[in-house]
Amino acid sequence: MGAVEGGQAMPEMLDRYRPEIERVLRQATPSGDGFLYKMMRYHLGFEDENGVPQPRGIGKALRPTLCLFACEAAESDWKLALPAAAAIELVHNFSLIHDDIQDKDIYRRHRPTVWYLWGYPQGINAGDGMRELANRALIGLREGGVKPDKILAAFRALTDCSLEMIEGQTLDLNFERRLDITVGDYLQMVSWKTGALIECSFHIGALLGTDDQKFISAFRRCGRALGLAFQFRDDILGIWGDESATGKSAANDIRRKKKSLPVVYALERSAGGIKSQLTGHYSHEQLDEAGAATVLSILDELGAKAYAQRMVEEKCSLALSHLEGLKLSDWARGEMEKLVAFHLNRER
Amino acid sequence: MGAVEGGQAMPEMLDRYRPEIERVLRQATPSGDGFLYKMMRYHLGFEDENGVPQPRGIGKALRPTLCLFACEAAESDWKLALPAAAAIELVHNFSLIHDDIQDKDIYRRHRPTVWYLWGYPQGINAGDGMRELANRALIGLREGGVKPDKILAAFRALTDCSLEMIEGQTLDLNFERRLDITVGDYLQMVSWKTGALIECSFHIGALLGTDDQKFISAFRRCGRALGLAFQFRDDILGIWGDESATGKSAANDIRRKKKSLPVVYALERSAGGIKSQLTGHYSHEQLDEAGAATVLSILDELGAKAYAQRMVEEKCSLALSHLEGLKLSDWARGEMEKLVAFHLNRER
Repeated sequence: MGAVEGGQAMPEMLDRYRPEIERVLRQATPSGDGFLYKMMRYHLGFEDENGVPQPRGIGKALRPTLCLFACEAAESDWKLALPAAAAIELVHNFSLIHDDIQDKDIYRRHRPTVWYLWGYPQGINAGDGMRELANRALIGLREGGVKPDKILAAFRALTDCSLEMIEGQTLDLNFERRLDITVGDYLQMVSWKTGALIECSFHIGALLGTDDQKFISAFRRCGRALGLAFQFRDDILGIWGDESATGKSAANDIRRKKKSLPVVYALERSAGGIKSQLTGHYSHEQLDEAGAATVLSILDELGAKAYAQRMVEEKCSLALSHLEGLKLSDWARGEMEKLVAFHLNRER
Repeated sequence: MGAVEGGQAMPEMLDRYRPEIERVLRQATPSGDGFLYKMMRYHLGFEDENGVPQPRGIGKALRPTLCLFACEAAESDWKLALPAAAAIELVHNFSLIHDDIQDKDIYRRHRPTVWYLWGYPQGINAGDGMRELANRALIGLREGGVKPDKILAAFRALTDCSLEMIEGQTLDLNFERRLDITVGDYLQMVSWKTGALIECSFHIGALLGTDDQKFISAFRRCGRALGLAFQFRDDILGIWGDESATGKSAANDIRRKKKSLPVVYALERSAGGIKSQLTGHYSHEQLDEAGAATVLSILDELGAKAYAQRMVEEKCSLALSHLEGLKLSDWARGEMEKLVAFHLNRER
């Protein structure tokens, strides 16, 4: 286990590759006088808004970590996969920059968002530019001697998953105005919006590490399940998370009327007066503190938190089960188990 | 020469590949019930806003045409390059969808823009999705038997040019608030914003058609010059164009305070009272009809239209000169000359 953060031991996997991930990400966004690059470096935390270099490191970098881990679990040199890991993190950040505009979010990781500083037209450019840098990073696999056919397979995986991610975001925005979302609708949406890129991280890492199709597809399925578990836990933290750990105010997602798993479950399960109360609150333009408190108490009554946590556990077990038939080193299997154990109960 | 439109003969080149370009573009945006695809098909003109198929064809499709022509001029089968031609047109349309949001334009090709119909958050998704479809189209080259290394070279070209295009757009937005733009600044901006993708069209077409580096780089340079000529002529039409031919109201770019070539030239060349008058008008939030009329008369006085047209001519000659040393068939050389002649004086 690595450093203890917020009272929880971070799995060693999340520390193992971080310095190299940060290095390739910095390499992918070179300093220069172009304003486009300045916005991108700001978003990644490498500079402040005036272009002054920041020592602050990258975040958890879960996705590139998964990519490199899958490559190493396939008993290949994970350093070969570094350009792909960078590409995946850049795609993730491209989506964050655009999401912030679409959701009108003014803070991310305790800092003003790109669009909030420079306006949404330039924010769109910053996201667009980041997506191109991801392509460019992936092409960089060639310099490490990866065969062109493998690189094309990685391109196909990254493109397909980015498209799914965008479809998920399109669905998510449509859900905002609807009160008839079922848990099934929600699952489709997050499978695209979050699951696709986490599957892709394992997919690309595995395909760069091996030609064994069974290995690759087991990791893909594992990644999709892990992505859902990750999102469900995020949804729990968005409502019941500890402010000091998550950096977001408690019940934040209730106030923002986010259709996250506990809420969608409550909307589906409630009936009669409780349902009218709930839909009433979600029909208002804004949810005030009293409204948020009522919604919270309804969620408690319906056991929405326990339900969501059961879903986290279910997807975590499923993720591990996909790897069961594979010949994996004890090291790799142990790392996966620790990662899953961490995600089951993470507080941030 | 092909059909006569707006009193001008369209060069045959622009008709030659159009049915096939339209076919691959329709193929790239398959019908389905996904809202994301619906927005993309609407933007391309294949459906109306309710998803009803439209017989209306694509526009000039200049960029994919240039791509296919370069491949054919290299004496290769241009049909092999069709997926790349589609990719280029999709990148162009990705940029148009986002530009419309950034510029708050509510009409394009006589129809409401995507963001105007569905809001800017979904408009961002439509553009993002279109960019992914371009990647997907390019990967499709593999099915035609193109070697993976060539496809990677095409990816590199498309990514580099998209990044330049986004840098150009970033610069263009920054210019909006400045009055000290020089012709030099403007040239850098349009070289990125417009020149890059037109160069890329020739670049990818040529590299798919031949391994001859001299041929490829001559076509690239020709494309960059052609892109500039194209943009300069567009700038002229944006101010002095005939409303019925361009589909835009006359002096439209003056009213929108666009820093196009004639205006930047006038800002640089004027002095004293004329300059204060000009900068005064461009400092206002809105330019009214009287203001637009004054600006127009100042442009006339300074010979800004004649200057811009000389620039069109210069870049057209330059474009042709880049191909001089190449062994080209009489057919290919003739087509290029007709294309350039058309762009010299096109009215739409």
